[in-house]
Amino acid sequence: MRSHYCGIVDESLLDQEVTLCGWVNRRRDHGGVIFVDLRDREGLVQVVFDPDRADVFATAERIRSEYVLKVTGRVRRRPEGTVNTDLRTGAIEVLGTGLTVLNTSETPPFQLDEDDVGEETRLRYRYVDLRRPTMQRRLQMRAQITGVLRRFLEGHDFLDIETPMLTKATPEGARDYLVPSRTHPGSFFALPQSPQLFKQLLMMSGLDRYYQIVRCFRDEDLRADRQPEFTQLDIETSFMDEEGIMTLMEEMMRELFAQVLEVPLHTPFQRMTYAEAMRRFGSDKPDLRIPLELTELTDVMAPVEFKVFSGPAKDPHGRVAALRLPKGGDLTRKEIDDYTQFVGRYGAKGLAYIKVNDVNAGREGLQSPILKFLPDEVVVEILNRTEAEDGDLIFFGADKARVVNEALGALRVKLGHDRHLVARGWRPLWVVDFPMFEMDDKDNRWVALHHPFTAPRVDNPDELAGDPGHLVSRAYDLVLNGTEVGGGSVRIHNMAMQQKVFELLGIGETEAREKFGFLLDALKYGCPPHGGIAFGLDRLVMLMTGAQSIRDVMAFPKTQTAACPLTQAPAEVSEAQLRELNIRLRQTAADKKEG
Amino acid sequence: MRSHYCGIVDESLLDQEVTLCGWVNRRRDHGGVIFVDLRDREGLVQVVFDPDRADVFATAERIRSEYVLKVTGRVRRRPEGTVNTDLRTGAIEVLGTGLTVLNTSETPPFQLDEDDVGEETRLRYRYVDLRRPTMQRRLQMRAQITGVLRRFLEGHDFLDIETPMLTKATPEGARDYLVPSRTHPGSFFALPQSPQLFKQLLMMSGLDRYYQIVRCFRDEDLRADRQPEFTQLDIETSFMDEEGIMTLMEEMMRELFAQVLEVPLHTPFQRMTYAEAMRRFGSDKPDLRIPLELTELTDVMAPVEFKVFSGPAKDPHGRVAALRLPKGGDLTRKEIDDYTQFVGRYGAKGLAYIKVNDVNAGREGLQSPILKFLPDEVVVEILNRTEAEDGDLIFFGADKARVVNEALGALRVKLGHDRHLVARGWRPLWVVDFPMFEMDDKDNRWVALHHPFTAPRVDNPDELAGDPGHLVSRAYDLVLNGTEVGGGSVRIHNMAMQQKVFELLGIGETEAREKFGFLLDALKYGCPPHGGIAFGLDRLVMLMTGAQSIRDVMAFPKTQTAACPLTQAPAEVSEAQLRELNIRLRQTAADKKEG
Repeated sequence: MRSHYCGIVDESLLDQEVTLCGWVNRRRDHGGVIFVDLRDREGLVQVVFDPDRADVFATAERIRSEYVLKVTGRVRRRPEGTVNTDLRTGAIEVLGTGLTVLNTSETPPFQLDEDDVGEETRLRYRYVDLRRPTMQRRLQMRAQITGVLRRFLEGHDFLDIETPMLTKATPEGARDYLVPSRTHPGSFFALPQSPQLFKQLLMMSGLDRYYQIVRCFRDEDLRADRQPEFTQLDIETSFMDEEGIMTLMEEMMRELFAQVLEVPLHTPFQRMTYAEAMRRFGSDKPDLRIPLELTELTDVMAPVEFKVFSGPAKDPHGRVAALRLPKGGDLTRKEIDDYTQFVGRYGAKGLAYIKVNDVNAGREGLQSPILKFLPDEVVVEILNRTEAEDGDLIFFGADKARVVNEALGALRVKLGHDRHLVARGWRPLWVVDFPMFEMDDKDNRWVALHHPFTAPRVDNPDELAGDPGHLVSRAYDLVLNGTEVGGGSVRIHNMAMQQKVFELLGIGETEAREKFGFLLDALKYGCPPHGGIAFGLDRLVMLMTGAQSIRDVMAFPKTQTAACPLTQAPAEVSEAQLRELNIRLRQTAADKKEG
Repeated sequence: MRSHYCGIVDESLLDQEVTLCGWVNRRRDHGGVIFVDLRDREGLVQVVFDPDRADVFATAERIRSEYVLKVTGRVRRRPEGTVNTDLRTGAIEVLGTGLTVLNTSETPPFQLDEDDVGEETRLRYRYVDLRRPTMQRRLQMRAQITGVLRRFLEGHDFLDIETPMLTKATPEGARDYLVPSRTHPGSFFALPQSPQLFKQLLMMSGLDRYYQIVRCFRDEDLRADRQPEFTQLDIETSFMDEEGIMTLMEEMMRELFAQVLEVPLHTPFQRMTYAEAMRRFGSDKPDLRIPLELTELTDVMAPVEFKVFSGPAKDPHGRVAALRLPKGGDLTRKEIDDYTQFVGRYGAKGLAYIKVNDVNAGREGLQSPILKFLPDEVVVEILNRTEAEDGDLIFFGADKARVVNEALGALRVKLGHDRHLVARGWRPLWVVDFPMFEMDDKDNRWVALHHPFTAPRVDNPDELAGDPGHLVSRAYDLVLNGTEVGGGSVRIHNMAMQQKVFELLGIGETEAREKFGFLLDALKYGCPPHGGIAFGLDRLVMLMTGAQSIRDVMAFPKTQTAACPLTQAPAEVSEAQLRELNIRLRQTAADKKEG
């Protein structure tokens, strides 16, 4: 129907006739002439209708915002002084000689350039919301990103292979979405939390290199960057170790950023052990753009009498650390109170601090409610270790190590943003040498930090003896500007090793067989060494497009209560459908009250 | 770990050292030397271990079928007389100088070259089954096919956009898979039968051109070529009519067959109306490779006294037709009985026939139990219309048109295969001008032949008056060698038209609003003219790989009862999980008996 997209008509088409299809972005009447900004996926172009052509002009007079038009016209230079250099089409306009109204539009529920439309409204009228140029660009960039990733992987012999959506509960440990089976009454499929086991089975099938851009599902209470269904770039390869995999993934990321953003990423990416990341940044996904670091003070604080510090310092699971904010001395009492409240969300019981007015003036140069509890040599050591300078502020965390890390780690990021300390650019980082297991305090048992198929950094199952907390895995996470965008590992390919790991996780033989029997079987029949990685595609696209939420890089996301305001899903179903599926609804509390 | 894939080592690598990883396909000991066929995704290579290297030889003596090996060695020419010209690697062998057993294997549940392994066993040990070269090739070709399709579409400005899996019941009319919502007790998501409404919404969002390779779900009783989850290449575009879409799709198919099979498809593809396809082939997906056609006899039979023929011929919904089998006179009584039974499956109450011994000998030259019921002029007309020749056999169908078409249409295909009449090659065909509606005899109401969003071939809703059975839609199906591989249509983009179509389908305003309210809303706000198509990817891959079932082109398909013998899905879940989802199981008949 059209000869060109609106958004690409420029001076190269001067004096040519073009046919355009698009939406009326705006109509203005000026000096007896009608100006229409016609919009399509590629952008806007100005169309002019003058009264010389009476029939076309009469039609043009009817048009309103969001009408769908087909326009034929000649491209001409805009009059001097009306050129818009912000637009690719800004030097030209189209003199309309033909006009068809392909469809009309009622006044849309909101204007496309309105900024403060509520998210519920945006999602309900998503087909209007997605017409905004920002949303169009994001979805276009998302398509471009998946295209580049696919071409890179296919160029490296990876095969795009589909794995089932109707499957068995997967081992990620989040809550599954379940699908009742009609043909097997009382049984349920689970929607996959990831294709983890299937991709390992594909390696056991000799397919060598696999990738898939695949939907995954987790029925969790939603946070800002979570959705019930999300998309993973899932990769697995045989006969390659972690060095090989990480190197290849760096190459992929470099290609991606070069092609999509025209940004050079420098390889090899920085690497850091989990232990170092926690020590320096209180986080296993540190944002390296922020020039703030934690300072270890546990050893310094153990001997002091001040129990708030010495208690955690002497606790084997405790930690005392400082976070110096350069030039933070100007923080007001109110601001410090707000930060205290902020770290409270992470379980910190307070937020001690020292203002450093004059680093050379001894106690006189410092200002702090806790100063009186600290002996001189400790104060000196704090100033030395934090490398404090005049005008700085030093925050303290003292608690279980987990609380200190989470609280100061989050505070570090918040201060970085609040104080405009975040450097520009991209700081990819591999975090490696993760612990195999972490203690689940609630259940007092070891759980896999990644998943139970992650290989430990030992060759022999016998070496798994001793404190499971000290075992290091062959896992690696890719962190980009403080967001974990990918995570993977070399997998266990030896059955004795897999059984030993199940054992350490307290997964008995019966449970192991019931849940993962097919994997244990498969390990018996010639399983190759293999490993892989999975990227959170939504998050990666969010970072690359500069969106604030993964909802802004999905065409039809769900709300925070996992509902779709557009289609009104989920919805009630008929009694007959439930009967076919061999299930019935439970009486809710409300039903009972009514009854 | 490796320098080359096994299957590509050839004379270009003579005298070079290679490192290979793979599975032991076969080990033979011959003349004091050990021969190993090492297998990977790309094929086999022969590795030789001789006793000169004692340590390597000792390791080689341990190896069994399906062990996973890493082999280093030098490529050398095979001794004369032992060259295998069937293999790319058949002129060389690798003299093993290094050998690591990466993993052992128990004796696999079946041999890779066993032909008659039951499907349940194949699916249960899918990771062994998928190691077969045939299965590897199919999955590789599938990946290649999706790659070519994606590149073609992206090269034509189509954007890969993901649509939700957790959504609302879709209008395709098959049974939905349901997913109970935890956060909205008593409500359910449906897994999509297709992204039909979402892709239309994307057009209304101004995204212009969309595609997706997407999983779809139908909870139907399974037939040979159906699976509960299947994959669709889904396409939609704005501002293009059926000519534009069909032409573009032809180009895509031509590109696909050229790149993957190196077969030239000739464009434009043949086109045929639905009416012609039914008349000539009794099917809306005729296999044009089979040179048999139905002959219309309804008008001829109306006046005869023989009720078996004149009854259907006079019934406005009836049909009488013939199917001539050239040189079919040699069919035995038994064979004809078998074909009679075969058409019985389609509801035919019998299968009348005439053997044509001598076409010029009048009744004497014919042989048939029904001959005596037919007057001379009718017999002559039958012979004329069917263009019968000596030695032919003519079958007859007389019943409701639907029964005649299904029975003779199926018989035509069966005879084509049984008599080896199927021509080689690819015969793509567009079937067009479908009826908008068909009568659902059971419920005695009109239903949409495609779906209720298909545009009728009229411009104005008022033109929808009259007999709905005569309305023709703007739908098109792509048929390839008798299989429907794609289907699509131009959609309704005008609200009044959409409402009128709902009305004809007996979908009341309340129902329309409840089910499709969001679509009706969207039609109000500037919906562009649009249309699209969806291809059954599994079927297309099945045809292109020559597989007999779509299960053979999926990595992990389900059985005919929608179960997975590998993972044992679906499975029982805990009472706690059901409680969270606000559902409980119904008591089954068996439970009740026990109770």
